[in-house]
Amino acid sequence: MYKLYDFLPSGNSYKIRLLLNLLDIPFEKIDVNILARKTRTPEFLKKNPNGKIPLLEIASNKLLAESNAILYYLSQGTDYFPQDNYAQAQVMQWLFFEQYSHEPNIATARYWISILQQPEQHKEQLKHKHRLGYAALNVMEQHLSNHNFFVGETYTIADIALYAYTHVADEGGFDLNKYPAILAWFKHIEVNPKHILITDT
Amino acid sequence: MYKLYDFLPSGNSYKIRLLLNLLDIPFEKIDVNILARKTRTPEFLKKNPNGKIPLLEIASNKLLAESNAILYYLSQGTDYFPQDNYAQAQVMQWLFFEQYSHEPNIATARYWISILQQPEQHKEQLKHKHRLGYAALNVMEQHLSNHNFFVGETYTIADIALYAYTHVADEGGFDLNKYPAILAWFKHIEVNPKHILITDT
Repeated sequence: MYKLYDFLPSGNSYKIRLLLNLLDIPFEKIDVNILARKTRTPEFLKKNPNGKIPLLEIASNKLLAESNAILYYLSQGTDYFPQDNYAQAQVMQWLFFEQYSHEPNIATARYWISILQQPEQHKEQLKHKHRLGYAALNVMEQHLSNHNFFVGETYTIADIALYAYTHVADEGGFDLNKYPAILAWFKHIEVNPKHILITDT
Repeated sequence: MYKLYDFLPSGNSYKIRLLLNLLDIPFEKIDVNILARKTRTPEFLKKNPNGKIPLLEIASNKLLAESNAILYYLSQGTDYFPQDNYAQAQVMQWLFFEQYSHEPNIATARYWISILQQPEQHKEQLKHKHRLGYAALNVMEQHLSNHNFFVGETYTIADIALYAYTHVADEGGFDLNKYPAILAWFKHIEVNPKHILITDT
């Protein structure tokens, strides 16, 4: 059985929990408290030298890090990864967009404000994160204004990756009310009977 | 023929030029000067709403952004992308590591110091970038100390993605002399008869 090294508030970990649930794949969760620096212990660094969760243990000594690489691995051969070459590359495009232009801004703002509860200490940096985070939301809104999902009009791992931190962006001080297409897209994802919440244990 | 929207000093663009050369695929280069904000014109934003190069035009209205997504697309069915599922996911892991933990630190330091030539203006931020950039180099060094390449002991797009900014990390103020395994890995890449330099036009 897969072991998922996990931290409940992490959107990156939630991506994996959500996909495993959608695919009805059982897994064991191992909680690693990043606030207590449990990803920086010698034991954990042996498993992931980059010291980050989520981490998927496929088998003994068969580990995989990076949330979007794990989504890629688990989605192969399923409906959550398209068949067409160009559509596959478009999924990749959105996954890299998420890790480069979206997550470092939107997830980090949420981390400072709602997880660490230190908005004042990060006031100046938050201005920068909000500017770049809104730019990423604008790109998403533009795309979703004439699409139901990010690639090929079906639910793929591109949607899972982008949903994870977007749907809790308000916890990072982002106002989603000016993004009607993003709010409509949330519903397309949440209507799935196997959907789970980020807070579901 | 592929059109590559390109900027010569960009390591992200160089990744694509290098792979296309390795694969003997002809392409047309279209220079987009990011310093003159040519990626922010209405014409360019129509092609890539996220306003970034490299951008690959596969055909009219068939565009692909994000350097590592372009590497993925071009490498399918070639020796630069492995066959095995887990090896494929390991390539993805390193591609996401590159875009999240490596490029934002190592490429940005180079951009401030050698492209913009403004090291003094970014002095404080550079300390932070250097700390995180060295952490990424340490992860690479550890892996390469008992591997010739990043995945499966053969040259894949994971190596191309990581080579692009690592081999010019000195231009961002990083001292690579303490990384013998990284320096040896450079040679494994550069020995390829189809190798090109980042400065090759």
